[in-house]
Amino acid sequence: MLTIHHLRLSQSERIVWLAEELGLDYELKVYERRSDNRLAPDEYKALSPMGVAPVITDGDLVLGESGAILEYILATHGTPDQRASFAPGPDSPDHADHLFWFHWANGTFMATAMLSLMLTIANAPEGNLAEAFSRDRNAKAWAMIEARLGEADYFGGQSLTLADINMGYALTTGRAFRQTSVEPFPNIRAWLQRIGQRDAYRAAMAKAEPGMTPMLS
Amino acid sequence: MLTIHHLRLSQSERIVWLAEELGLDYELKVYERRSDNRLAPDEYKALSPMGVAPVITDGDLVLGESGAILEYILATHGTPDQRASFAPGPDSPDHADHLFWFHWANGTFMATAMLSLMLTIANAPEGNLAEAFSRDRNAKAWAMIEARLGEADYFGGQSLTLADINMGYALTTGRAFRQTSVEPFPNIRAWLQRIGQRDAYRAAMAKAEPGMTPMLS
Repeated sequence: MLTIHHLRLSQSERIVWLAEELGLDYELKVYERRSDNRLAPDEYKALSPMGVAPVITDGDLVLGESGAILEYILATHGTPDQRASFAPGPDSPDHADHLFWFHWANGTFMATAMLSLMLTIANAPEGNLAEAFSRDRNAKAWAMIEARLGEADYFGGQSLTLADINMGYALTTGRAFRQTSVEPFPNIRAWLQRIGQRDAYRAAMAKAEPGMTPMLS
Repeated sequence: MLTIHHLRLSQSERIVWLAEELGLDYELKVYERRSDNRLAPDEYKALSPMGVAPVITDGDLVLGESGAILEYILATHGTPDQRASFAPGPDSPDHADHLFWFHWANGTFMATAMLSLMLTIANAPEGNLAEAFSRDRNAKAWAMIEARLGEADYFGGQSLTLADINMGYALTTGRAFRQTSVEPFPNIRAWLQRIGQRDAYRAAMAKAEPGMTPMLS
């Protein structure tokens, strides 16, 4: 039995979203963050060596890292039609775009957001080389996203792929940590409305973040 | 024709390594870093919206992001045997491990290394929440790598996969930026010796970093 270990307000919401998109039978275990420091509780940290979300268990397997889990679940629990749809292959015109945004989500965008948050916590002075580097990267990243969603309805192209699911957290729930506004980005706001209309996304958020209003604007 | 745009001393060395492993016919364009600030020259920045390495061009396609490029090249230029070997699928016992380390390389490890470098540049005081977070993550990450290479010869398992190629840069050339020593890690040092004996790795480094001695210890 596939078990998704979801830490509240964390990247593991992606995994719940994929499971709902695929219509899987799975067990969901929800872990609350500590009230004193907002970090993961010890029982969540004990699940994997890095002690971070997301984590799944599937039989004897314990697996972390969003990109790996999304690919693993699609490959081992998805149907052939679902695999072709959520991860367009070399025969699809969307192949390269899907791969780019799927990897860019964590390899660049989340890393940039994390860097920016941590430099704020470290009180890096404005104009410092690191702060300027981070600010420039962040601005470029948001501009790229806005441009992409002006040329296609979804990151991967014409329909929802693992790239959208991997990008979703930083554009929704993850914004709570930085109070980031999407007001300047009409294409991003249109994409948020698009995913907010999906039954699978709504079902995932109702289960993973009960009581929370998804950040779709 | 596949063209690999390699920025000296950057993550794009991974792409050259894969091309050599697959025995591809490709064009290599090497770009020197600016002498004044060690950043990419303007002609490299102009290749892609983020202005960072790696970048490939393949016909009309311009593609960035290491993980995406590695998957794309293997899928479109690799043989079926190479695809099964460098990206073990669900039928292989190495499937999940391969996926984990392949994604973890940039999703977690490079992000952690970048955060640590930037906090140093920002003069984050020791004991600051961000500095402590970064130091803890970094220590856990290196310990995980050392443990992994004690249980398998390669990150993906019994043979070299895209996971090793994605991890390689941070364990070799990338260490130059932090003066990181691998002296405390015998398993990592053994892996470095293992990849250093590969003709493809040696050929890639001779082409991508002429005159540089690969950091294999």
